[in-house]
Amino acid sequence: MGEIVVMAPDAPRSGNACAITVTEPIHYRLIRQEVGLTVYKCSGKPTDCVKLAFHTVLDRTPDLVVGGINHGDNSGINVHYSGTLGVVIEGCLKGVPSIGFSLCSHEPNANFEPAGELIREIVRQVLEHGLPPLTCLNVNFPVVDEIKGIRICEQSKGAWVNEWEDLAVHRDLHYYWLSGEFVDSNLDDERTDHWALANGYAAITPVTVDVTARDLIDNLKTWF
Amino acid sequence: MGEIVVMAPDAPRSGNACAITVTEPIHYRLIRQEVGLTVYKCSGKPTDCVKLAFHTVLDRTPDLVVGGINHGDNSGINVHYSGTLGVVIEGCLKGVPSIGFSLCSHEPNANFEPAGELIREIVRQVLEHGLPPLTCLNVNFPVVDEIKGIRICEQSKGAWVNEWEDLAVHRDLHYYWLSGEFVDSNLDDERTDHWALANGYAAITPVTVDVTARDLIDNLKTWF
Repeated sequence: MGEIVVMAPDAPRSGNACAITVTEPIHYRLIRQEVGLTVYKCSGKPTDCVKLAFHTVLDRTPDLVVGGINHGDNSGINVHYSGTLGVVIEGCLKGVPSIGFSLCSHEPNANFEPAGELIREIVRQVLEHGLPPLTCLNVNFPVVDEIKGIRICEQSKGAWVNEWEDLAVHRDLHYYWLSGEFVDSNLDDERTDHWALANGYAAITPVTVDVTARDLIDNLKTWF
Repeated sequence: MGEIVVMAPDAPRSGNACAITVTEPIHYRLIRQEVGLTVYKCSGKPTDCVKLAFHTVLDRTPDLVVGGINHGDNSGINVHYSGTLGVVIEGCLKGVPSIGFSLCSHEPNANFEPAGELIREIVRQVLEHGLPPLTCLNVNFPVVDEIKGIRICEQSKGAWVNEWEDLAVHRDLHYYWLSGEFVDSNLDDERTDHWALANGYAAITPVTVDVTARDLIDNLKTWF
């Protein structure tokens, strides 16, 4: 579908959100080059990778920035913690149509194949239509042999609970390991990405990077 | 104004956004306790600190989650990279009114005093009125001897440019250090946080954690 340039972190960067590396240098190097595909690996975080690719290896502004496909669910409020979405938000802030793809499975042998055809279809549509400024797409795929179709969704609400495993106390240090379960507050709501995924659909959630809560502005003005 | 519990990272965590620690345990320990003030330090990232405090040391849901005051600007699109806002977004996702405070200066001797009285006023108003669900506040203070007042703002638009310092090439590795300047695309717009800060006002920008771009949903539905 086009020429692909990959600038990928050199190891998993789960939970890196939009984090950037400000206290040390990062580096990249070429690891593969063939017709239509150039691959670099980078010591930085996902957002660093986008910033560095734009500054160094790309010879023009790309038509599309893609994060993923991620090995794990980035739906609902996970949008805030996701390094995949870090890539997408950075691409979007740079004015390029940007899409994150994630498969809702952490299984080592997870089957990414059913997502393939839909990914090509979504990319075709985005290349044809473009995306409005400050808006990107978060796409999640369910773990099913046959995906029922695509649903356009809202970000599901809910909360992580039982978030920590109590490991040990060593001297005065209390050790914990992040864990937890997600509890939906609106799983019955057919508008949400979690409903779509639970019912076998791919979920496309449009995401804004202008996070101003405009509804509250007039009210806040009366406080001061 | 109330009982304060601090769970602070044990070193600076600039640019940590909403990142979480998923690949290793983290730890905390008590470092100070007096009437109305308990202070812990934590090896995690800002968002870890909030999650861990809620799970471990707090004996009830707090009335308020505060990030900062940060030593550096978190206005405009920096909301996406900011660890201070990571704290605030996490508090908000947990259903507690949450505010981030930042001073727009990296000077070692920056004067945080002028912000103090306004911080107390903003906290008083938030404790009295509450904040709507999924909404938090990003407050930035200008570097002036006398702050002119408070303005309720929108997130300024713009982009970081010249983002990397080219350090060296060592063997096949290309080393870069993150740097850059921010270029406003709407500094003349009196509604923005950058206009407020450039003109001597404290900027309160209400921020939503429901990042669904609802405007695009109907349009997207026609694509598939």
